[in-house]
This record gives sequence, structure tokens and C-alpha cells, in this order.
Amino acid sequence: MAHVYNDPVDFKDDMVEGFLSAYSRYVERVPGASAVMRRGGPQRGKVSVIIGGGSGHYPAFCGTVGPGLADGAVIGDIFTSPSAEQAYRAGRALEGGAGVLFSFGNYAGDVLNFAAASERLTAEGIDCRTVLVTDDVASAPLAEQHKRRGVVGDFVVFKVAGAAADRGDPLDRVEALARKANAATVSFGVAFDGCTFPGRDQPLFSVQPGFMDVGLGIHGEPGIRTVAWMPARELAGILLEPLLAEKPAGAVRAAVILNGLGATKYEELFVLWQTLAGLFIEAGIEPVLPEVGEIVTSLDMAGCSLTLTWLDPELEELWSAPADTPAFRRGSMGAPRSFATEGLSDSPATAGDTEPSPAAAAPPVGEPSRAAARTARLALRAMLETVTAAADELGRIDAVAGDGDHGVGMVRGLRAATSAADDAGQAGAKGVLQAAGAAWADKAGGTSGVLWGAILTAAGAVLGDQ
Amino acid sequence: MAHVYNDPVDFKDDMVEGFLSAYSRYVERVPGASAVMRRGGPQRGKVSVIIGGGSGHYPAFCGTVGPGLADGAVIGDIFTSPSAEQAYRAGRALEGGAGVLFSFGNYAGDVLNFAAASERLTAEGIDCRTVLVTDDVASAPLAEQHKRRGVVGDFVVFKVAGAAADRGDPLDRVEALARKANAATVSFGVAFDGCTFPGRDQPLFSVQPGFMDVGLGIHGEPGIRTVAWMPARELAGILLEPLLAEKPAGAVRAAVILNGLGATKYEELFVLWQTLAGLFIEAGIEPVLPEVGEIVTSLDMAGCSLTLTWLDPELEELWSAPADTPAFRRGSMGAPRSFATEGLSDSPATAGDTEPSPAAAAPPVGEPSRAAARTARLALRAMLETVTAAADELGRIDAVAGDGDHGVGMVRGLRAATSAADDAGQAGAKGVLQAAGAAWADKAGGTSGVLWGAILTAAGAVLGDQ
Repeated sequence: MAHVYNDPVDFKDDMVEGFLSAYSRYVERVPGASAVMRRGGPQRGKVSVIIGGGSGHYPAFCGTVGPGLADGAVIGDIFTSPSAEQAYRAGRALEGGAGVLFSFGNYAGDVLNFAAASERLTAEGIDCRTVLVTDDVASAPLAEQHKRRGVVGDFVVFKVAGAAADRGDPLDRVEALARKANAATVSFGVAFDGCTFPGRDQPLFSVQPGFMDVGLGIHGEPGIRTVAWMPARELAGILLEPLLAEKPAGAVRAAVILNGLGATKYEELFVLWQTLAGLFIEAGIEPVLPEVGEIVTSLDMAGCSLTLTWLDPELEELWSAPADTPAFRRGSMGAPRSFATEGLSDSPATAGDTEPSPAAAAPPVGEPSRAAARTARLALRAMLETVTAAADELGRIDAVAGDGDHGVGMVRGLRAATSAADDAGQAGAKGVLQAAGAAWADKAGGTSGVLWGAILTAAGAVLGDQ
Repeated sequence: MAHVYNDPVDFKDDMVEGFLSAYSRYVERVPGASAVMRRGGPQRGKVSVIIGGGSGHYPAFCGTVGPGLADGAVIGDIFTSPSAEQAYRAGRALEGGAGVLFSFGNYAGDVLNFAAASERLTAEGIDCRTVLVTDDVASAPLAEQHKRRGVVGDFVVFKVAGAAADRGDPLDRVEALARKANAATVSFGVAFDGCTFPGRDQPLFSVQPGFMDVGLGIHGEPGIRTVAWMPARELAGILLEPLLAEKPAGAVRAAVILNGLGATKYEELFVLWQTLAGLFIEAGIEPVLPEVGEIVTSLDMAGCSLTLTWLDPELEELWSAPADTPAFRRGSMGAPRSFATEGLSDSPATAGDTEPSPAAAAPPVGEPSRAAARTARLALRAMLETVTAAADELGRIDAVAGDGDHGVGMVRGLRAATSAADDAGQAGAKGVLQAAGAAWADKAGGTSGVLWGAILTAAGAVLGDQ
């Protein structure tokens, strides 16, 4: 369980502040956003690779921002996607005239929020593409690869995209290479014990002592089977076998990551590698620059996973390219490449111009709408009280199906929504509900945040201000 | 607890095999030894920095072998010093004509075993120096700094020595700089929960839930006080205050490491850094290239520690120098420096010539000594049976005062000793006891290994073969 925190509600913000301070030689904050970027901000004329997702997975995601890897990372609460507003702000701030690639693991909350951000950026004239990572073979069959979750494959896809962008590839090419890396990447994992949110004393889930949960996800999503503990030499086969089942004909060279989830330590991973090394030889696989360590963690979860990316010469060059970030360094970056600054149109995405323009002056608000706004405020307050009282139960239910944060997330969103509704002063129903919806989506993040934000905003639009 | 292992007795050997395989681009085995060295072995004319200690602390120690850091690492069993024989073999194999620096944390077992190795190397004409790391302020007062344990300060001292050796400094200078780095380095830590040896289901020690053990050592050595849990913003002061108490007048710039012990994860460390950053400013300290992460772990122990090294320009240059190792990389190494290969005497330490010369033909063994040898074999076997039956109790007692491995270590040593005594065939008392002593010291490692090895060897010398 976590032991080092202040108010658990502030955990993510405290963490981001500390990260920015400790690694100021690499990163700085995206102004006004829960996001970090390479020190010095975007490079004009270079594609910007923006990654993200919930926190609790360090080095993923902010730990791999730097030359040769990502340009920025949007940071959500623990195991919770960042909001569309934060992703949008990161996209605006980091666009350097050559377009933006969003890349992240395939989870409903991230998909919804980054899609909303992408729509806004596209509407403002920024070329914005998205590559979902779908490497976890335990989460869907090969025929439904697009439904798979993203786990440690995230890192390989980000590495490939980041290296391509840094050598000057255009957006079409960076996107295509990231898709190719994702299609070539497979992962499979096991868990031995659960993880615990800061401030909680009960784990999000648990694994029966003496057993292991095969295929369990990085947020505790249920695995595909529970089996008795087995020695490392047998576990190695359990991890590799489902990946070999999808080995393309003729594939020989592979990027390999043996990843610890938090409490399963390096020495254990090396014991496992001892057997894996022999299995790779038997299977005709040549590991290329393998990494054994913690690349994508899940708080203090006990468990590990194996990731393979089948390399062709193009992917191998990008996997092998130098990188220099807080948590991952490879080779020598040399002097930063200069990007063309001429011939680029003066796009609307000039760095620094990150504030949306104010809305045109609205017509006066009618008294019936003011009355409806008061009702909306009371309704939000009643929701907050009800949901606060039920927060533990909502968390318990969510822990069965998901990551157990639904109670906390709803309370965080409703607090922000009621506060924004109160601050909206003499606004009508539309003004109050849209302010509440925007605040909910922004502060809560996750799937419920973006959905409730959209519900309130839509209801406000129907009711109007008259 | 550990979940990934085969036979716990083989854990270290399995781990070393896996490490060598996964990171073969960095390291290779020291021939015939439980030790690793930079790929390609020693460089002629360069001082060799050899580090070591028990395992269970990765990245310490083998994870930091590579250009800019150590030349080799001797690897003991979990929380157990490597044997003198292994340290000797590493010294022989890695000496490149410019001498050897042994450096390791100040623990009785390591001190005894490396000292025995150093004596043998010196007797064979190799210039061998030793720098103990003594940074843990919780373990002795400043006036008895030489009695302090070595914890994360190990890494800083190794980094400084490694950088000095790689730029071509002679042994006197490398030794002096390592001593200076050690004198300038202070660490202090806390633990929230114990760690568990592979194959055990009970932790080595435990911390009462809701409390933290302040000053606890990296092998579970008792701390200086137990206090109630406190928020990160208060914990930051607890960690920094005893280090500030030893701040030299005028010290401003400091290397800083905020280290996680295994289960206390990165996000928690960043939350702690948020407060530390402000405290550094208040105290007039400027962190130089700080590292927040896992540098010296203790299996899956929950806890963290803070390390400061007061930097002058000389130490800062070495702390900042590039390094490229499996677990720690900084900057760009560039092409490896060439060292002089002329003018060096053809010392007895030529790499590859690692086998000690066979003993001169011995006089025949007398029958009384053969009878004594049979008694010695029976005595060893009785010891093995007695100690095996008492192994759990020996471990329990040792867990109160030390690291809980005394039962396991004694059994490992006695098994090796009885086996070697049996293999000694028609030897007399001296031959049998010296074979048993050498095997015990080599296979058991630790303090008890080197002491029992010395006892049996000395008894054999007194009894003789007649």
C-alpha cells in the first residue's frame, strides 16, 4: 500500500509538482494544464507526440517525455484518464506547425477524452491524429485486436513515434509507423497481488495467496484464469506461449520488455529471464536491446508482464534510436536537430496562444431560466450529497468490473460541478449547466467525467437561457 | 513478498544468469566467479573499480557496471556478502595493471571477505585499495562516522570513483576521491513495512501498521525510533533534518537521491519531493542532477531514503560525468578512452591468468591424521544435522539483530563443507579441514562464512597431515 502522501485528493497534483521540480532539467509544465512537456516547449516544424493516461503507472507516462521520445504527457488522476480539456490544452500548447499525434492505451475514458480534444484541435485547424495502443492479448482475441487494452506496448509505440518525429518525419509517416509498431506488439501478464490507492487501507483487488491471476490488467481488470503458483521456469512459458501464438511467419528479431508492476522486483525478473532466454532461442527469436525493469507500473501491484514487438529494419532503427528522458535513457542524443522554421503557415496553433477566445456577448437571461438554474443548482447539490454518501459502495461495485475509482471520481466531479454552478452567478439554466458540465469533465476526468460533462452541457443547450 | 523464483537456494545464481543474458550488451561473467564485469573485460592501464555486496538491492550492485561507473561487481546471496574467494577472483580477472579499488558498504561480512581478498591480491603483487561507504547517519553518530553503515551513498561513491578511473586517474587519486565522496555523503531513511526472502512467507521484519520505523537499515537493521504515520509534508522534514545537522559550513550544491526501497513507488517519491524542493531552498541547498527512483532497493521493502553529497567543483564534475550501465545512464559516453598499454610491467595480474598455481607436492599423509580426518568428517556431518534442525530458530534470532539469514547461511556453508570434506578422499586432517573451510567460506559468504572458513583452516593447520 502507499505510505507517502498528503491529502489523497491532491495526490496527483502533488506528484506532478514534485516530478516537475525534480526533473526540471528535462521537463516543464504545459501552462495552465495538468500536463508536462519537454523543457523549452515545442519545436517549430516538428510533429509533436503527446501521450497520456491516468497516473499510478510511472515511468508511464510523464517519465518518458524528452528527446527521442514524447514531446508531452497529459496526466490524469490515479488510474483515471485526463480530461478532454487538459488534452486539448496540451495539444494547443505543443503543436509546432507540423501536427500532433495523440497516442495512449485503449481505455474508454482515454478514448472519449482524447477524441473530444482532437475534435476541438481539428476544428481550430490543427492536424491531429490518434493511435491507440492495443497490445494486451489477454483482453481480446486476435480477430478483435482493436478491442485490446494497451499495457507495456504503450512504451514501444511511443518510442517508435517519438524517434520518427525527432528525425523529422511528417505526421502521416509518424502516424503510420506508430500504427505499424502497435500492430507488431503483443503483451501478456500475470498478477500475484493487488495494489492499493493512496489513503486506502484495502487493496483495489486481491489474488488468493498461493495463486496467480493470469492475464490481469494494469488497473486490476479481471484476468482470464486463476492458477496455482508455479516456479519461474514454468511461469516463463505461461507468459511467452500466447505471444508466440501470434508470431508472424518469418519474424526473428524482437524488442523485448520484461516489466515489473511495482512490488515484483528486478532480481525476480532476472530469474524469469534466465528461462525466457532459452525459450527465445528455441522459438528462433533474437531479443533486440531488451529491457528488464519497471516501464509501466500499477502502483504497488505484484506481478509482471512480457512484451514483444516483431521488428523489421524500419522499426528496429526507431526502437534502437537514442532517447533521453527522466526515466529512460538510451545511447547519445547528440545535438538537437534543427527543424525548418520557414515555409510554415502561421497556423492558429502558435505556441503560447493557448487561451480559447471568449464567447461573443450573449443575449440577456430570462427570469424563467434563472429559476430553472436555481433548480439545477439544488439538483446538483442533492446529487453531491447522495453520491458522497454512496461513494464507498460505488467504489466497491466498480472494483469488481473496473478500477474501483467510480465513487471518488463522481464526488470529485460533483464537487467541481456544484462549485462552478455557484460561481456562475446570475446565469440562466444553460450557463449554469454548461459551467457545471465543463468543470465536471475537467476535474473528474475518466469515462464518467466526460459523459456527465456532455449530459449537463447538452441539457443546458436544450433548456437555453430564456 | 517475492513470487518469481525456482528453488530459493538457487535464487542468486538464477538471477545472475538472467541478468547476464538480458544485459549481455553491457556485461559478461568474470570467468569462474559469481561476479560480472564490463563486456570485454578490463582495460590495460586503467584502475579497476570493483564493487559488491549481497543481492536483493538491484540496481545495486551489478546493475551499475559499465562505462563511467564500476568495472565489475561481486555478487553475494541475498543480503549476504560475497565470499573472499569470489572477490579475489574478480580482483585477479579485472586488474589491468593500474591497480584495483574495492568499494562497498560498511558491513561486517563484506569487510571481512573483501579484506581477505585484498590481502591475497596484495601478496600477489596487485596494488589493491579499499574504500568503505559509511553514509547512514542513523547507524552511528558523526564522531563515529567510520562505524556507519553504507546505504544509497554507495552509488555516489561508486559513481565518483568510476568516473575518475575512466578519465585515467591513477589509483592514489581514485582512492582519495572516493574517500572524499564518502566523507561528503549522508543518508537517512524510513521504513513502512518489511521485506520477504524468496520462498519465505513471513517477512524478515515488520512495522506496525500506522507507524513508521525511522532510521531502519536496508537489511531490516533496527531503526532509532518508531513514530506514528505522518503526511508526506512532515516526513520530508524528518528525512532532511538529520542531514542538515551535518551540513558543512558553506556547502550549497549537493547531489541528491530520493530512493525507493522497493514497494514505495515513484509517484509517492515525487509527492515527497514536492515538499523537499521547498526545504532545499530554505536551507540554501541547490540539488545537482537529482535522481528520484530506485537506486538501492531492499527486495520489496516499503520505505524510502534521502541521500545528499556536498559537492565541490571536483566532486560535481565526477557526479555529472556520463555513464552507461544496465540500470543507470547519464549523458553521452562518446568513444571509449584509450589507455596506455606501454610501459606497464608484465605484472602477475594479466587478465585470463586467473587460476592460482597448484600447491607444491605435499608429503605423504600419516595414518593418525587420516583417523583425525575421519573424526573431522563425522563432526562436520553432526554439525550439519544439528544446524539444519535449528535453522529456523537461528534465522529467527538473527532477524532480531541482523538480517535473518544466519540459519540459511550456516546450512549452505555446512553442506559445502561436508561435501568438500568427503571429496578430499585420502587427505589427512589438515587437507580435509582446509578443503572444508575453503568451501564453507566460498559458498556461504557473509560474516559466518568467512569466520568458519578461517576457523576450520586454522584448526587444520595446527593438526597438520601427520
